[in-house]
Amino acid sequence: MSLQELAAIRAALAATDREGQSFAEIRVLYEQLAPPVDPDDGTMVEAFEIGAMKAEFSVPRGADATAAILYFHGGGYCLGSLNTHRRLARSLAQAAGVAVLAIDYRLAPEAPFPAAVEDALAGYRHLIGRGIAPRRIAFAGDSAGGGLTMATMLAAKTENLPLPGAGFCISPWVDLANDLPSMALKAAEDPMISKRRLDAFTAGYLGPRDAGDPLASPLRGDLRGLPPILIQVGSAECLLDDAVHLAGNLGLAGVETRLDIWPEMIHVWHFFAPLLSEGRDAITVAGRWLGERLRT
Amino acid sequence: MSLQELAAIRAALAATDREGQSFAEIRVLYEQLAPPVDPDDGTMVEAFEIGAMKAEFSVPRGADATAAILYFHGGGYCLGSLNTHRRLARSLAQAAGVAVLAIDYRLAPEAPFPAAVEDALAGYRHLIGRGIAPRRIAFAGDSAGGGLTMATMLAAKTENLPLPGAGFCISPWVDLANDLPSMALKAAEDPMISKRRLDAFTAGYLGPRDAGDPLASPLRGDLRGLPPILIQVGSAECLLDDAVHLAGNLGLAGVETRLDIWPEMIHVWHFFAPLLSEGRDAITVAGRWLGERLRT
Repeated sequence: MSLQELAAIRAALAATDREGQSFAEIRVLYEQLAPPVDPDDGTMVEAFEIGAMKAEFSVPRGADATAAILYFHGGGYCLGSLNTHRRLARSLAQAAGVAVLAIDYRLAPEAPFPAAVEDALAGYRHLIGRGIAPRRIAFAGDSAGGGLTMATMLAAKTENLPLPGAGFCISPWVDLANDLPSMALKAAEDPMISKRRLDAFTAGYLGPRDAGDPLASPLRGDLRGLPPILIQVGSAECLLDDAVHLAGNLGLAGVETRLDIWPEMIHVWHFFAPLLSEGRDAITVAGRWLGERLRT
Repeated sequence: MSLQELAAIRAALAATDREGQSFAEIRVLYEQLAPPVDPDDGTMVEAFEIGAMKAEFSVPRGADATAAILYFHGGGYCLGSLNTHRRLARSLAQAAGVAVLAIDYRLAPEAPFPAAVEDALAGYRHLIGRGIAPRRIAFAGDSAGGGLTMATMLAAKTENLPLPGAGFCISPWVDLANDLPSMALKAAEDPMISKRRLDAFTAGYLGPRDAGDPLASPLRGDLRGLPPILIQVGSAECLLDDAVHLAGNLGLAGVETRLDIWPEMIHVWHFFAPLLSEGRDAITVAGRWLGERLRT
């Protein structure tokens, strides 16, 4: 356990957390936090646009480019970009030994629900259009991107698209009502997420729309028929119960599910992988799980 | 997925299920169901007694006998024996590459709560007395034995014994009130477990005692400080939510937890490993997880 590394990250987060920041201010901070990528690691990067949406298709050295992860970054549907999560998406692809398509889906409040789900589906259609078989595609994402992972599967089901072969959710945000028990029980322990902050994201993304819509809160959707799902969550998270309830509902729906709860870990600790060994370890575990399912 | 094998097992279970069987009648049936062990697999078996309790210490060929699993069989605290679970305990030990101590803890209603917990602790003390380091011991069990896995950790904590290095619960029964949602939601799908049957076990084990006692329903105990826990459960189980809620409460307590939900699988499908490939696969996965934690 890298308790010292974790303490340093907690201190840095506390220093940037100010009451009443606007989304615009937080977006700038988030860009500054983004860990750099190694330009010389041999990854082949193709930057392009899907409609008006920026996208990056990256193939790590030695990866199987006939299989791919479709990655959705986190940020409460209001923050984040290709830039903030480039390193996380790319290291996950490297660990899985497959390509990754990262998409710059439209953000709220400028583009509210269901814009993100529509853009995610467009990303999926793009991968299928490239000739990658759906069963060799995994959806993956962190936080709101974990919610989008599940919501996009539900949307694909509704549109009668073939489903992807697997899903991977990091600290997923899947119930936008923000009232599961861990929201209060972990409030003192969680340095990043709070009900206040999540309620602001919900308001930005949904406006007057109902948080019970399964494409916004996929926890409440009909999860039957979905492919195997891996969920990783930290024990020091207000969103712990989003992950636990998602696993429970997937089980009720008969879906193959693995839930890993990492002690002491904070929201999307993978983001801090350059500083935190558990971040690197979690990416390795998830990469192996994804690789086993996609590289067949 | 071995759907044909599973269908045959479901049919066999349906044929033996009769309303109003006594514990004595079910005990006889359970003994008949017990899968045989291979006497020529090279396992060294030491049969002996801990006080008045029969016990078997088995060392599979090539296993590290300085690490061990303490195995608690299932059967609602009212059924089961060394004989019924010899094959399951031994194949788990073989997959983990360590020894296993199986104990014939006293059964209810003849010996009600907390007799089983007392006997389980005696088994743990025996292993420590043999010179096996607690961190190289795992508790494991199925159904009621999964509950006993957790309850015995809580009891060890209360007695200020050092805790074991890991725990493994197969389809654990951890809330003896038998009223979590999956009890009803999975009733039509589960060929073995029903609220009626579990309520009979609860009455036999607890009599007039409170199902809220954490040593009877460890779901409700103080789980802080426990070692890593692996939980495996089938999606076709009335006890699905015992597993999911246990994972959730372990997470709230900051314990490293892995929950695997296996689609279509029925209560303790590992028991049917000789007939069912998923039973063998689950034992392999759990054995690897245990071996990584114990053989260090």
